[in-house]
Amino acid sequence: MDRDFILTPWESEGDIDYTRLVERFGLNVISNEMRYRVADTAGEDHFLLRRKIFFSHRDLGVILNSHQSGPGFFLYTGRGPSGNTHIGHLIPWVFAQWLQKNFDVTMYFQLTDDEKFYRDAGLSLDDTYNLALQNARDFAALGFDPNKTHILINSRHMGTLYPLAAQAAKKINYSNTKASFGFGNDTNIGMIFYTALQSAPCFLERKPVLIPLGVDQDPHFRLTRDIAPILKYPKPALIHNIMIPSLAGSKNKMSASQKNSAVYTTDTPNQIRKKINKYAYSGGQESVAKHRELGGNTQTDVSFLYLWMFFEPDDVKINNIKKEYESGSMLSGELKQILIEKMTKYMEIHQNRRESVDIGEYIFDEVEYKNKMRR
Amino acid sequence: MDRDFILTPWESEGDIDYTRLVERFGLNVISNEMRYRVADTAGEDHFLLRRKIFFSHRDLGVILNSHQSGPGFFLYTGRGPSGNTHIGHLIPWVFAQWLQKNFDVTMYFQLTDDEKFYRDAGLSLDDTYNLALQNARDFAALGFDPNKTHILINSRHMGTLYPLAAQAAKKINYSNTKASFGFGNDTNIGMIFYTALQSAPCFLERKPVLIPLGVDQDPHFRLTRDIAPILKYPKPALIHNIMIPSLAGSKNKMSASQKNSAVYTTDTPNQIRKKINKYAYSGGQESVAKHRELGGNTQTDVSFLYLWMFFEPDDVKINNIKKEYESGSMLSGELKQILIEKMTKYMEIHQNRRESVDIGEYIFDEVEYKNKMRR
Repeated sequence: MDRDFILTPWESEGDIDYTRLVERFGLNVISNEMRYRVADTAGEDHFLLRRKIFFSHRDLGVILNSHQSGPGFFLYTGRGPSGNTHIGHLIPWVFAQWLQKNFDVTMYFQLTDDEKFYRDAGLSLDDTYNLALQNARDFAALGFDPNKTHILINSRHMGTLYPLAAQAAKKINYSNTKASFGFGNDTNIGMIFYTALQSAPCFLERKPVLIPLGVDQDPHFRLTRDIAPILKYPKPALIHNIMIPSLAGSKNKMSASQKNSAVYTTDTPNQIRKKINKYAYSGGQESVAKHRELGGNTQTDVSFLYLWMFFEPDDVKINNIKKEYESGSMLSGELKQILIEKMTKYMEIHQNRRESVDIGEYIFDEVEYKNKMRR
Repeated sequence: MDRDFILTPWESEGDIDYTRLVERFGLNVISNEMRYRVADTAGEDHFLLRRKIFFSHRDLGVILNSHQSGPGFFLYTGRGPSGNTHIGHLIPWVFAQWLQKNFDVTMYFQLTDDEKFYRDAGLSLDDTYNLALQNARDFAALGFDPNKTHILINSRHMGTLYPLAAQAAKKINYSNTKASFGFGNDTNIGMIFYTALQSAPCFLERKPVLIPLGVDQDPHFRLTRDIAPILKYPKPALIHNIMIPSLAGSKNKMSASQKNSAVYTTDTPNQIRKKINKYAYSGGQESVAKHRELGGNTQTDVSFLYLWMFFEPDDVKINNIKKEYESGSMLSGELKQILIEKMTKYMEIHQNRRESVDIGEYIFDEVEYKNKMRR
């Protein structure tokens, strides 16, 4: 576990060591006390918290205080539309939907089509905008309240976002972005400016914001947290999930741009079956005999991890699977079969919602927002 | 004339040596032949061309060709609203209005309130936006055709400008901006991105654009000209005017942010009289006797230069003034009196127009533009 690793919003290399990441990023691990407090305030627990998929935070206590005896808070998260949505993206969104439902709060969702355009030489802004509309369907399908949920697409809602981003941009210099993202002389000026746009939704309302997000996005908001007090806004609070592994390996981040590294929300039952059977890294032993003797490794088995992280929220069931797989009584193929069934069922429901959802109900309305802010 | 000088969009230091500037920037001096061609095509000559106030260009011939036997062209210029409008700003605008009238073309005018906000620690975006609205009145007062003239304010029209700026930003890296503007580690990321926004209006229409502008703005468009072919747009053509001197000195640029360095379009007759009498650098001699003997210097006398550059378009009259001043028969006070009268009269008419003009008629309409572009 001493090998080096890299984790930035755009790069993930090597096995992520979360203990070292906590130190490196200066994160606060979510204590049991904090977890109980969230569950108490929400009125129910969530398995993503219980299983430490959401494992760290910044100022989560401030958010709960503001909810209980202050002006409340709002939610914000986002996505860079570089390809189809995969299950790694769903984790913070599903959790955000749970937060919205239990805390009855406004949610802003930012689709950063410009970021992916700046990043990928092969994508036009039309390409990433169209991907954004596709990703928006996945998001809206998760059951957010259309009256309290606003999807912003950068290239479309710049009239609102840019003046907010400008406030941030004035306070961030080139050195800051070099230090946070490793930018250099050959970085294009769109990428250099972009972090200000990811900050912008934090300033849509003058009250605390909570951002559920993959921990790789933390560097953007470390910058935002530095400048928020200068702009007289509360520091954005964060709650981080671990990266969901790609099909190929347990500790790498899933990628929407690498084919066969992920299961997408658009995959057919056939594709899901093939991908899991063929590509999902197995923690099982080389032979059935050896597997019966030594058992499988649930720390590295991607099928187990997908069940644990997302597709089997029932603690009794997941613990049974764990015991059986580790003891050797459950084979890798049997474990994969469980995941395939769970996943196929989930995707069937999701895809139906995805097709029928009216994203128009969710798209951010600049005129309505302006009028609301004037009040 | 061998002292060094600096001229960038944000800095002017030392005496500008235009011969060396032409070399340094790689400009094309406007030949007599080119000047005649412009006058022939326009149907009349303009004193700003005749007197070489507009002294250099890039691809002006391409514009005339496109007008005579191609898809035509459009005009674009702009202003960073850091303060009130001074007469240095009026020069490219007055010339642009003449071009619009004689070539019957569309004009886009960009007010870069974000740029001035990024640049000046003491200005809020509300401040620069309000200055932009004031500057817009000065522009519109010059007689542009409201049906063919569109004023864009960056913080307000980002919905249109950002997607165009993004195309440019992807092709400009940090090195390019370092080389063009001398940016460093402490430059804020708004400033670094900004040049892409100044490029954006070049891409509002898919035909050649001509930009009348102060020569200090050339570095922005050298970058734009490098990337336009990659984006499959024609290279923007430029026609540059020399910098109008500040009241204090003949070869420095006027500044809207330095008090008493300029006459503003909002100055009263009293203020104009006082500023010219007190601050306008005189090319006259120390005593009346010496002046009668040696005559005044029209190369350095700011009052003469203001008449020459803007307020006395009549060649016969300006040449008489020149002769009389250089011969010593006209005293510095008399010359100042001529300028004060001319300037006061001009400002009176301008201020009336400025108050009565309806800038709403000129403000860029994003919906109308979108519909037009779809056709």
